[in-house]
Amino acid sequence: MSQISLSDLNAASKVDFVSALANVVEYSPWIAEQLAGKRPFVGVNQLHTALMAVIQAAEPEVQLALIRAHPDLAGKTQRAAGLTAESTDEQNSAGLDRLSDAEYAAFERVNNAYRDKFGFPYIVCVRRHTKDSVLRDFETRLPNLVKTEIRRAIEEIGRISALRLDQLVVADDRLKVHGRLSTHVLDNHTGKPASGVAVELVELAKLGDSRVIARAVTNADGRTDQPLIGGRPLPIGRYELKFSVGQYFAERSVPMSDPPFLDEIPLRFAISEPEGHYHVPLLVTPWSYSTYRGS
Amino acid sequence: MSQISLSDLNAASKVDFVSALANVVEYSPWIAEQLAGKRPFVGVNQLHTALMAVIQAAEPEVQLALIRAHPDLAGKTQRAAGLTAESTDEQNSAGLDRLSDAEYAAFERVNNAYRDKFGFPYIVCVRRHTKDSVLRDFETRLPNLVKTEIRRAIEEIGRISALRLDQLVVADDRLKVHGRLSTHVLDNHTGKPASGVAVELVELAKLGDSRVIARAVTNADGRTDQPLIGGRPLPIGRYELKFSVGQYFAERSVPMSDPPFLDEIPLRFAISEPEGHYHVPLLVTPWSYSTYRGS
Amino acid sequence: MSQISLSDLNAASKVDFVSALANVVEYSPWIAEQLAGKRPFVGVNQLHTALMAVIQAAEPEVQLALIRAHPDLAGKTQRAAGLTAESTDEQNSAGLDRLSDAEYAAFERVNNAYRDKFGFPYIVCVRRHTKDSVLRDFETRLPNLVKTEIRRAIEEIGRISALRLDQLVVADDRLKVHGRLSTHVLDNHTGKPASGVAVELVELAKLGDSRVIARAVTNADGRTDQPLIGGRPLPIGRYELKFSVGQYFAERSVPMSDPPFLDEIPLRFAISEPEGHYHVPLLVTPWSYSTYRGS
Amino acid sequence: MSQISLSDLNAASKVDFVSALANVVEYSPWIAEQLAGKRPFVGVNQLHTALMAVIQAAEPEVQLALIRAHPDLAGKTQRAAGLTAESTDEQNSAGLDRLSDAEYAAFERVNNAYRDKFGFPYIVCVRRHTKDSVLRDFETRLPNLVKTEIRRAIEEIGRISALRLDQLVVADDRLKVHGRLSTHVLDNHTGKPASGVAVELVELAKLGDSRVIARAVTNADGRTDQPLIGGRPLPIGRYELKFSVGQYFAERSVPMSDPPFLDEIPLRFAISEPEGHYHVPLLVTPWSYSTYRGS
Repeated sequence: MSQISLSDLNAASKVDFVSALANVVEYSPWIAEQLAGKRPFVGVNQLHTALMAVIQAAEPEVQLALIRAHPDLAGKTQRAAGLTAESTDEQNSAGLDRLSDAEYAAFERVNNAYRDKFGFPYIVCVRRHTKDSVLRDFETRLPNLVKTEIRRAIEEIGRISALRLDQLVVADDRLKVHGRLSTHVLDNHTGKPASGVAVELVELAKLGDSRVIARAVTNADGRTDQPLIGGRPLPIGRYELKFSVGQYFAERSVPMSDPPFLDEIPLRFAISEPEGHYHVPLLVTPWSYSTYRGS
Repeated sequence: MSQISLSDLNAASKVDFVSALANVVEYSPWIAEQLAGKRPFVGVNQLHTALMAVIQAAEPEVQLALIRAHPDLAGKTQRAAGLTAESTDEQNSAGLDRLSDAEYAAFERVNNAYRDKFGFPYIVCVRRHTKDSVLRDFETRLPNLVKTEIRRAIEEIGRISALRLDQLVVADDRLKVHGRLSTHVLDNHTGKPASGVAVELVELAKLGDSRVIARAVTNADGRTDQPLIGGRPLPIGRYELKFSVGQYFAERSVPMSDPPFLDEIPLRFAISEPEGHYHVPLLVTPWSYSTYRGS
Repeated sequence: MSQISLSDLNAASKVDFVSALANVVEYSPWIAEQLAGKRPFVGVNQLHTALMAVIQAAEPEVQLALIRAHPDLAGKTQRAAGLTAESTDEQNSAGLDRLSDAEYAAFERVNNAYRDKFGFPYIVCVRRHTKDSVLRDFETRLPNLVKTEIRRAIEEIGRISALRLDQLVVADDRLKVHGRLSTHVLDNHTGKPASGVAVELVELAKLGDSRVIARAVTNADGRTDQPLIGGRPLPIGRYELKFSVGQYFAERSVPMSDPPFLDEIPLRFAISEPEGHYHVPLLVTPWSYSTYRGS
Repeated sequence: MSQISLSDLNAASKVDFVSALANVVEYSPWIAEQLAGKRPFVGVNQLHTALMAVIQAAEPEVQLALIRAHPDLAGKTQRAAGLTAESTDEQNSAGLDRLSDAEYAAFERVNNAYRDKFGFPYIVCVRRHTKDSVLRDFETRLPNLVKTEIRRAIEEIGRISALRLDQLVVADDRLKVHGRLSTHVLDNHTGKPASGVAVELVELAKLGDSRVIARAVTNADGRTDQPLIGGRPLPIGRYELKFSVGQYFAERSVPMSDPPFLDEIPLRFAISEPEGHYHVPLLVTPWSYSTYRGS
């Protein structure tokens, strides 16, 4: 997606402004039209707050129309017919483009059950989720009242639009839409950061296969050069970090048993705050280790 | 196997003595015959030491015959033809009765390669091993010299006979042939032993499927009532202990994230000393944990 | 104190029974007289429960007389005049025989303030306390109502008498009046118990000087042969355990910085449950350590 | 000390250059005179390397004169007579201006013994030391050969001059003469950084009194706003960090025993690398804690 500066947005003609924001909220140019009159915006946070205020102030039937303008999750027919580029990217980020037939069926059941009850599609900001957590979210929301789900749908539209604005608009301030997952390996045997440790991050799945989503080797400070996940929301879900400590200590000729007491160490944890910072360090000797949610 | 007391063995006629010890060393009554003359034994350790001395003192060709009297590991034909009851039990304990066709093929390759090189069967005390570690042991031993392997085979016969004596003979002393794997869960959130934590021990396998070999729930002291493995050698191999700490803290209404940061905690480790004591504790809060090789 | 078996107590004449229990409750033979009629006792717990029931059932003025029969804590004049042997031992155990003039003055202020308000001496089971915690207990209790303090005084008489019965009577059951403080040093550098580590236990004092109350060296299992405190209640108070780990690692030629990053490690903690089991282990490498309240 | 930029130094007249560097090496303008001819310097590291090369290249008697131009450590008479401002600051930084009479006597013994043996004063870069470590360094060096001590003295002059250059010269590069001591408190009870924890850093002394050298309160990230020691070398010595965790947990109404099991936690460690980064974190619950040398 090409980017535009906030000052250009502030200076643009109404037509250009509306066109620029066309895809921030799915098929709903009326929002951008109202926003145009509220310019200038001093920051992207103010812009997003104004956008949400426009939606909140709309008549109930207009809000409903907005909700109904959204596609079904993982809808086969809709994907064939074509989603907005934004929707496609977002759904793919949660792996919704890699569903097995059984998974498609599961999502279709979800969508249909939700539509049947509420009369509008189930909306969720998929960039904040894994396939597992989407299904869990659905199960939590299906028993809700209609008015609760209208509120929840607008909340999710708010999150989706914030992420889209974050990608689209260059401004001095940043929306708080990204999280970060990092690690750090401390070698308590020698009292130094452990460098050269192979690290693998696996997204665990109940639905379908677990998959490796990041691989790295620790640097001289025992950290990875890049966060394991960064520059995006952390998908809610279950993860496993794997550290090849047997190989690390073997390369340093540290006395170990054969096979080594500790070889590949798995740390299994869940992410529940997509915009949070998860620091999951490993303090390790050939005979012991610790981990904790750090900061 | 029915048991016999050491004092009865000491008092028995030579014929009865030899008959009682018939299966301690595979198809080799001459050993018991020589041992009969060395009675009385003050303990089972002395008996086993004498047994090993008889083997060590034998002529090379007698030693070779002893080695050749042993069956192939997991040999399909031999199992069909019938092993001694002791051999059958031992091989089953390492899962050699649950081999897939591919695994049979792997063991057959091993046996044949070994036989081809050394002219006698590959002998290993299987009760001290998992399938994985047997294959690894084979790979380590195949490059050896013949004289090294004769020494190693006799060593393994020593371990096999020690375990068989341990089961057969009731004496005041015990042979040091058993190991112990235990755990302990400390709840550092409340400063108390964690009781009621579901624990699962899995034997990890490269060859074939991993399998749960023990399940327990921690008691008031945070321990399991029985060792996770005890009363036998600890099979050399890789293991995973799984602790259901999410459920434990949820039942105590401890504030947690949703999904919980820590839910099922896996501790992955290897056992290399079958006669050792492995204590693998878990110190845990909803946000941190540690483990170490304890005692 | 010489001991007597519960069966002898059950079989004794009333006079002998009363004489044997003479000093279990300070200057109050009427209690033993009533207890004599409730024999036989199946255990020392039942005997103590009966003793407390006799006190609870007494008329208020009798209870008051019982309370008044107790000496002041650390009273100089009373010590000169002579306490019962039991009181002397107990007061000495908390260091009340080693008070500086300033400390005597502090205790005298406490005693007088308490006596002035309540009209009876401040009673506390000193074997469960350090000097610091006695003064703290006094401060907590001084604002209480009279009826609360009568209840508290009887509670403390119950604890004092339980400890005296525990020393006096030999029975099949034991009163739960002892605590235990233990430690365990695990060397996470080599994955073994740390043997040969010098350990020192210091009772920390606000009032007067801190003093070493136990010294030990860890055995082959990384533990001390005897509990650091055992066979008595754990005095409520603040403690420091000191472990000479620098020396331990130096003797094993483990590479360390100079001076060693960790040398003498202090673990500072408080005991609040005199009848509890406090296990305070140390998991240590030359560069890291952990401790926790264990079990 | 007023500062000067490297470019100004490069452009200065020889006289001004020598005057500017007058006090970088004690009473030895000949060094600056030689350096003047080697300009321009691209960085302060290159300048310092050149300075050391000038000293190394000097005749033995010139080197000896340079060494002899240095004052005695903590010399009473010399302090009365006046040291260079630099020497005074440096000696004060190690507390040499706060010596008791007994300590003065100890340093005088050291100085005299050293002078008697070697014929020149004992030189050490005191900013890298505590009083204790200076005396320990002296004891290590006194048995050395004269030629070893000439080399060591020049090494220390190198360290002293590097620190003086670091303060004097503004350049694009920095000399690696500073260390850093930092901490971090993680609350494993709630899975968050512990903010608001009072922290105290004590320099432990064998010689004279221990003294508090830093006080701080942890911020929202569980760290102190400033390093506990920074912007200078870390004095070699023994330290204790004290964390008021009892108060921290009490303020958050976390259930604890009374008195709290953990209240003020002391972490005792030594610094041996003045230019290193020592990160000494505390992972803590009301019932457990860990520390390690981090990075």
